Amino acid sequence: MATTTKQNIKQANADYPIHKLIQKRWSPRSFSDESVDPELLNQLFEAARWAPSSYNEQPWRFIVARKEDSEAFEKLSQVMNDFNKGWAKDAPVLVLGLAKTTFDLDGRKNKHAGHDLGQAIAHLTFEATRHELYVHQMAGILPQKAEQLYKIPEDYEPMTMFTIGYKGRPETLGEKLQKQETSARSRKPLDEIIINS
Amino acid sequence: MATTTKQNIKQANADYPIHKLIQKRWSPRSFSDESVDPELLNQLFEAARWAPSSYNEQPWRFIVARKEDSEAFEKLSQVMNDFNKGWAKDAPVLVLGLAKTTFDLDGRKNKHAGHDLGQAIAHLTFEATRHELYVHQMAGILPQKAEQLYKIPEDYEPMTMFTIGYKGRPETLGEKLQKQETSARSRKPLDEIIINS
Repeated sequence: MATTTKQNIKQANADYPIHKLIQKRWSPRSFSDESVDPELLNQLFEAARWAPSSYNEQPWRFIVARKEDSEAFEKLSQVMNDFNKGWAKDAPVLVLGLAKTTFDLDGRKNKHAGHDLGQAIAHLTFEATRHELYVHQMAGILPQKAEQLYKIPEDYEPMTMFTIGYKGRPETLGEKLQKQETSARSRKPLDEIIINS
Repeated sequence: MATTTKQNIKQANADYPIHKLIQKRWSPRSFSDESVDPELLNQLFEAARWAPSSYNEQPWRFIVARKEDSEAFEKLSQVMNDFNKGWAKDAPVLVLGLAKTTFDLDGRKNKHAGHDLGQAIAHLTFEATRHELYVHQMAGILPQKAEQLYKIPEDYEPMTMFTIGYKGRPETLGEKLQKQETSARSRKPLDEIIINS
């Protein structure tokens, strides 16, 4: 259980009532230095494990590094771009998400591999939010660096990284990121994303 | 609220404790003929709306058809392959999920568009499960048919379809699908999807 102060949580300003975990989910950049229990981490990945996928292929794979293992953490940190390295170094857990782009069964291209990885990460994030943990996903990564460092086979695509941790104080961030961390959240209106046929 | 009997729900046989909505989520093919309230549908899409995305691009779009509007439902049904048409015709709501493959800001390719659509659908599904609704996603669709029928611009990719509805009786399905509907669920073990660096 988190001992950090639950401050500056930017809940979704939703137009319709939504589940409190979806409302509370948010991608902060300020994390406390409190570590995440390995058993609890397993619960998060168990939630990911039960995501749906095309032909139940389960194309999601994860490389996980906890800060306690400084060698593993430093290695995985190299896969982030410089901007993300700047803030994510303070999070207690770093994860690289990979998509297996071919089907186990017949080697055909799996067009939904990335889509299904996204679903698995969303599952993990719900479970995280339930335990007062926050997840911040990053598109800004260096896939080729990951391929070099981890000798990743050709049909596995390093797609995304994310941090997991308890919320920290925005004051630990630089001025620009601190401003982002406390500014209002925004989304397109519902009628821009739903097209009635 | 659903008036149908809550029977034959195949909960996840999880190895670690996970949130009850993640445990309960499942993709059945038997749906009751009970309709889904339009306001409740809006709540589901509101949950999708608050998903995270690369650069907050929100690349998800949805074409929605309720069975009550038979013309819209018939039109959207044409985008499924024959196998999926066979069972999905009985669901009360049919949705086509599209990914906008370029960034609004500068027209660059958005490599995470499909990934983020997946996250939005996971959000929607989580909210659906809370209201006793089930979602069944389908990869087996005809994207070109969608492009023709709906005059979809080039940078929007029809990626996936899904049904939304209350659970029905497996007996309404053909013999083969009925067997699938009641057989055990399976997932890769956790140590196959987590690679410790």
